[in-house]
Amino acid sequence: MKFSIQRDDLVQSVNDVMKAVPSRTTIPILTGIKIVAGTDGVTLTGSDSDISIESFIPKEANGDEIVEIKQTGAIVLQAKFFSEIIRKLPTDTVEIEVHNHLQTVIRSGKSEFNLNGIEAEEYPHLPQIEEESKFRIPADLLKAMIRQTVFAVSVSETRPILTGVNWRAENNELICIATDSHRLALRKARVETENNETYNVVIPGKSLNELSKIIADTNEPIDIVITENQVLFKAKNLLFFSRLLEGNYPDTSRLIPQESKTDIVVHTKDFLHAIDRASLLAKEGRNNVVKFSTLTDGVVEVSSNTPEIGNVVEEIQSQAVEGEELKISFSAKYMMDALKALEGTDIKVSFTGAMRPFVIRPLHDESTLQLILPVRTY
Amino acid sequence: MKFSIQRDDLVQSVNDVMKAVPSRTTIPILTGIKIVAGTDGVTLTGSDSDISIESFIPKEANGDEIVEIKQTGAIVLQAKFFSEIIRKLPTDTVEIEVHNHLQTVIRSGKSEFNLNGIEAEEYPHLPQIEEESKFRIPADLLKAMIRQTVFAVSVSETRPILTGVNWRAENNELICIATDSHRLALRKARVETENNETYNVVIPGKSLNELSKIIADTNEPIDIVITENQVLFKAKNLLFFSRLLEGNYPDTSRLIPQESKTDIVVHTKDFLHAIDRASLLAKEGRNNVVKFSTLTDGVVEVSSNTPEIGNVVEEIQSQAVEGEELKISFSAKYMMDALKALEGTDIKVSFTGAMRPFVIRPLHDESTLQLILPVRTY
Repeated sequence: MKFSIQRDDLVQSVNDVMKAVPSRTTIPILTGIKIVAGTDGVTLTGSDSDISIESFIPKEANGDEIVEIKQTGAIVLQAKFFSEIIRKLPTDTVEIEVHNHLQTVIRSGKSEFNLNGIEAEEYPHLPQIEEESKFRIPADLLKAMIRQTVFAVSVSETRPILTGVNWRAENNELICIATDSHRLALRKARVETENNETYNVVIPGKSLNELSKIIADTNEPIDIVITENQVLFKAKNLLFFSRLLEGNYPDTSRLIPQESKTDIVVHTKDFLHAIDRASLLAKEGRNNVVKFSTLTDGVVEVSSNTPEIGNVVEEIQSQAVEGEELKISFSAKYMMDALKALEGTDIKVSFTGAMRPFVIRPLHDESTLQLILPVRTY
Repeated sequence: MKFSIQRDDLVQSVNDVMKAVPSRTTIPILTGIKIVAGTDGVTLTGSDSDISIESFIPKEANGDEIVEIKQTGAIVLQAKFFSEIIRKLPTDTVEIEVHNHLQTVIRSGKSEFNLNGIEAEEYPHLPQIEEESKFRIPADLLKAMIRQTVFAVSVSETRPILTGVNWRAENNELICIATDSHRLALRKARVETENNETYNVVIPGKSLNELSKIIADTNEPIDIVITENQVLFKAKNLLFFSRLLEGNYPDTSRLIPQESKTDIVVHTKDFLHAIDRASLLAKEGRNNVVKFSTLTDGVVEVSSNTPEIGNVVEEIQSQAVEGEELKISFSAKYMMDALKALEGTDIKVSFTGAMRPFVIRPLHDESTLQLILPVRTY
């Protein structure tokens, strides 16, 4: 194997596949990156066996030569060293050559590294995915759907299925749902599925977080292929594989109240900042719980009280309060997570009493919803 | 006590005094910030009993009203909560009022905090410093002198005196020296001392690091007052006290070689980057040691070899190599620290053999010097 390559393109690709490379693993070869020089370009692969990422660097892009293949071949190099080395090389072009069986030379200017490589044949094969049917989402919409749901997955392994996000596609609509059983995040969007196929799978939250870091914030289409135990996201020159979680995701539709007794409309940022301040004194004693109450003339109050430290009262002028008076307590953290996930300047919060879950939605937008279970303090 | 104050000025002052507030302490009141509202403005104090910082916010600056004193008085508030609260308040102006003995109200817009304060009388008094004689340095020069020496202090408490920087003033020259016994950093500058006073003190490295973060990068003068066991740095509206370390600082003058057998002149950044790359493979096995050797035609080589991982060879074209051939090994970390501390595009390294300390200086600049002890490997 021997090729020269533009360093910046190599660094970008290595950064992408590094997202899958584990720092510790029981399979030593997975701490490496597989490098394959083919006739059309160079392919890099990283994997922790749950997530696998393949990045392709073509010989040419936009008329510029990026890779010059002198001899095809393959090698696995320690990811940690390889990524640090190429980032710090002195010149724009890097030459990589395997000689003497596995010894790999990396040359750039007057800098020469010799790394002990590992036989590429020993690297695990990526999942084989039959592309029987797929659907397509623009990259920026995919990122938004991940961002608005994935934070709500469970961080506890007591119910492993809740550490993933439930993706359901039916009637050309994709619904993403995450819940840790104290709160729930839901986002839906129109998608074009082939053959009007239906899906119901659970994708690990960690996989979606890594995917979101890699895909660019453009409206380029991402193809999504779902099989029985794998999902594959295909972007330009990038393949992202993730295993799916096994088991049945709970039916969350009954959790979401269909009617409400108190509705308020507030400015999202004002409300977020007030909750943030009210939580400052609540972090210590009381598990970050704040109290919320409706006052008169559309004013709502958020407060917390930790006797050893002090108390805080925040008043917010809402745009509308409709329905019954209300006093309710909830986690400030869950509320802030939900408010940050929503888009739009104004939100509507719909309560059905102090003991029932309540729902936060952007005003005039039915595609997304956040639900929070209250805490019993009153 | 009652006053209203511009939030941005208050935040800035709180950030400054927070540098002295300990997160843990055996003296609970020191986790607080003392706030004193006087007729001329507001004074904040933070202290961990080694370092004390006092920041004054005057009633007016540049013709703008910053503080409006409604009633003088004093209180101590929990630093952690107070600093977070004021940073997040919604409006530009903040009102702070002590009522009901120690209950302190912080008001901003529709936000109202009540904090339990502590009696200001209980806060320890700052050191009393007789300003018998002082000297003066521009703030930016002081920062440079700290930056170029403090990194070389010892992090080990086996010889506590080495955790400080030795400051000596004599004949209107200030010399700052730090060493951890493996390397040494020295910086000198002209200063105007009153009465041609001489000083020889050791200032804790931690104090200098914190001081450096607080003082602005301007050429405003800083007055320095040194007493038997304290040093006081006085900037505009800011007092910074530090205790001095007790004990005699070792005489380091004999350590610095007066002659050399091999001298090289290299571009600072090129050399730094080459060392950085050579150290990439040296971090694991061999304590970050790289080898350095002179080749022919003014080329020098930096290399390292870790058999399990690989090896690296870096060639650097020097501007001049004079004297004997040389092979020597040293810590890449110490060399990088030294190179980062020096100013100037080119440096001169003067060796006196593979077993002797060597000296790095900026070309044509006698005010600063870095010394490193080699490692025996050849």
